[in-house]
Amino acid sequence: MMDATHDQNLKCWVASANGHDQFPIQNLPIGIFQPGVLAEGLLTGDAKVAASAASGDALNPLLALGGRFRLALRRRISELLSDADAEAHLRKVVHTARDCVLHLPADIGDYTDFYAGIHHATAVGTLFRPDAPLLPNYKHLPVAYHGRASSIRASGVTVRRPRGQLKMPEAPGPVFEPTRRLDFELELGMWVGPGSELGVPVPIGQAREHIAGYCLLNDWSARDVQTWEYQPLGPFLAKNFMTTISPWIVTAEALEPFRIQQPPRPSGDPRPLPHLWDESDQARGAVDLDLEVRLRTETMRRSGREPERITAANSQSLYWTAAQMLAHHTSGGCDLRAGDLFGSGTISNAGGGSGSLLELSKGGTDPIVLSNGERRTFLLDGDEIIIKARAHRPGFASIGFGECRGIVAAS
Amino acid sequence: MMDATHDQNLKCWVASANGHDQFPIQNLPIGIFQPGVLAEGLLTGDAKVAASAASGDALNPLLALGGRFRLALRRRISELLSDADAEAHLRKVVHTARDCVLHLPADIGDYTDFYAGIHHATAVGTLFRPDAPLLPNYKHLPVAYHGRASSIRASGVTVRRPRGQLKMPEAPGPVFEPTRRLDFELELGMWVGPGSELGVPVPIGQAREHIAGYCLLNDWSARDVQTWEYQPLGPFLAKNFMTTISPWIVTAEALEPFRIQQPPRPSGDPRPLPHLWDESDQARGAVDLDLEVRLRTETMRRSGREPERITAANSQSLYWTAAQMLAHHTSGGCDLRAGDLFGSGTISNAGGGSGSLLELSKGGTDPIVLSNGERRTFLLDGDEIIIKARAHRPGFASIGFGECRGIVAAS
Repeated sequence: MMDATHDQNLKCWVASANGHDQFPIQNLPIGIFQPGVLAEGLLTGDAKVAASAASGDALNPLLALGGRFRLALRRRISELLSDADAEAHLRKVVHTARDCVLHLPADIGDYTDFYAGIHHATAVGTLFRPDAPLLPNYKHLPVAYHGRASSIRASGVTVRRPRGQLKMPEAPGPVFEPTRRLDFELELGMWVGPGSELGVPVPIGQAREHIAGYCLLNDWSARDVQTWEYQPLGPFLAKNFMTTISPWIVTAEALEPFRIQQPPRPSGDPRPLPHLWDESDQARGAVDLDLEVRLRTETMRRSGREPERITAANSQSLYWTAAQMLAHHTSGGCDLRAGDLFGSGTISNAGGGSGSLLELSKGGTDPIVLSNGERRTFLLDGDEIIIKARAHRPGFASIGFGECRGIVAAS
Repeated sequence: MMDATHDQNLKCWVASANGHDQFPIQNLPIGIFQPGVLAEGLLTGDAKVAASAASGDALNPLLALGGRFRLALRRRISELLSDADAEAHLRKVVHTARDCVLHLPADIGDYTDFYAGIHHATAVGTLFRPDAPLLPNYKHLPVAYHGRASSIRASGVTVRRPRGQLKMPEAPGPVFEPTRRLDFELELGMWVGPGSELGVPVPIGQAREHIAGYCLLNDWSARDVQTWEYQPLGPFLAKNFMTTISPWIVTAEALEPFRIQQPPRPSGDPRPLPHLWDESDQARGAVDLDLEVRLRTETMRRSGREPERITAANSQSLYWTAAQMLAHHTSGGCDLRAGDLFGSGTISNAGGGSGSLLELSKGGTDPIVLSNGERRTFLLDGDEIIIKARAHRPGFASIGFGECRGIVAAS
């Protein structure tokens, strides 16, 4: 539902917000930071309830309240920030971004990583199974696995190169060494709002009401560890050493103008079973986001070079909508809790725009070349990865996500 | 370390505790129940700190404190319960078991399920790959995957038969129906005590200090859902609809007399890499527990029959020790938090004593026959599964775990 909060002509009395490339007044993401407390004095009704729920050190209570409360808070804050008369009352709770330390916005009960980026799944599958890159289940259900919640960190935390068991093809057994194939994965994160009861699936038509907002997610991966460990139960140490997310929750309401039709399935693709298929979800279930990954190496940092864009992709490459992922997740009765996090799976565009070095370097065989002449198949110590994203549409203010940033340290 | 708390001659002024087959005074498990509060008045020092940490609605703060505090609390409670003079002070905080509702003992941050039951892994592998039942990594690392924390429930909660995508071999696509191959898995649960820091592996020699205690665990599984969904990222909906655990944490201290040598690896098996190998862990890293599974069908219940034992196994069938599992889990830098839960993987004995119906019925081809003539390949609605376990050793009081019980309801 679009409303005055999306009006591109809305001006804010925080001058730096006007024309801001990430967080204009039309965005209003929610997060946890120090110092920071919402001003409750000017709020009433649902907006006051929401602000109160957001006043602790994690946003789970706000997420649990659901869309009506987020919307009320959003509308009121939008009003106040565009009302010059309110400035005097609010100035004291407005902080400069550089004075704030952003934390994880919620206590993440469970983290689930999907695999919905079909071009990534196809590209990676091709490396292993050229004749049948996608497994038979891929187009019938949103493939997913449980990830590790404890090791999720907000943007900016250093990622230590993990050691792990590596098994060289010719060796009789594994060695325990620092990974040689450290990679990033470009993903979109989804925050679960109101949870669901054990044993009670969420119908596809109601699934979107359980998605509170979005973030950026880097699913750091140790490819050589993964190759050796992942059979038969899936990735474990190859992924759980750390996951980085952008710390602001960009609300579902802020992204409302950027919802578009899910790209129609190619002819010949199966139509999903009814519990995963809803026409109105298909009509507006995709989000049009341009995502990009930048790399800054130690050498670039020393020579004062800015991070260099190494890949970009659009979220329309996701084969499944957020509602389909959530409906699938609960279809067997698994319960969700407010503050659970989903990863979309790596987002790669068709024919390029690959969301991982595994793809960009063709399985480590063909290094990418940076403009300063450096080459990379996988990440070296000192490399920094920065993910950003932007939603834009003519007639609407462009919305950003902030950054999902991490630098690789030696193990 | 064994001490007076293990003395088999210790008598308790709670008469029903003397000779109790599960919870004699030598056990003293910890849990969360209503009504119930520890009496802090008679405690001092570490025991008082521990009791205070155990006074909330989850035991995570107590688990975080570590073994010294559990031990102090254990010793003091053992003293008080065997001291007739203390009875008058403590009678009011002693409750009859049937008056208590047991809850999950801790907020489970992350749940990891291992696959350390080698006879189970071999039996299941044989069903799929007769020539190579164990994958090459199995004897080099404790295979594991992340499970779902939200859907773990304490003993007694009904498990609803999940619906899921089932793909019949001859069918062109899947159907969405109640699972036809609902199974139990007999596992030992391990509670993480003090956590660990991100990026800092726990050395194998210190790993046991991070295991606070044990419970029983039923990893309910939908085999047909698993077959269709699990490639390439592992089990998801096949497992996450519910996991049942026994609600008491039987402390590592209570099990101290039952620690034994890890069975030597058969000749020809590889010696694990140094970060997973510690001689003192091998010498005392196994726990000698007899586990059993009983089944009571709806028909048995109606005719007043008691649950019938359908399988039994001993925890010495685990190929990896708890310390090896924990050291492996952190070896890449993944952090642990107090209250994390590990599952051991399904425990089956060699040559029988299979910890799942998948094994007992040879993949669903050979039903087990109950004494009343009923047959089962997989679980039917109304079937109840009860897991129990016992540690015994001459000269020591036998220790039990209580029950891990669940009844199957129609979907």
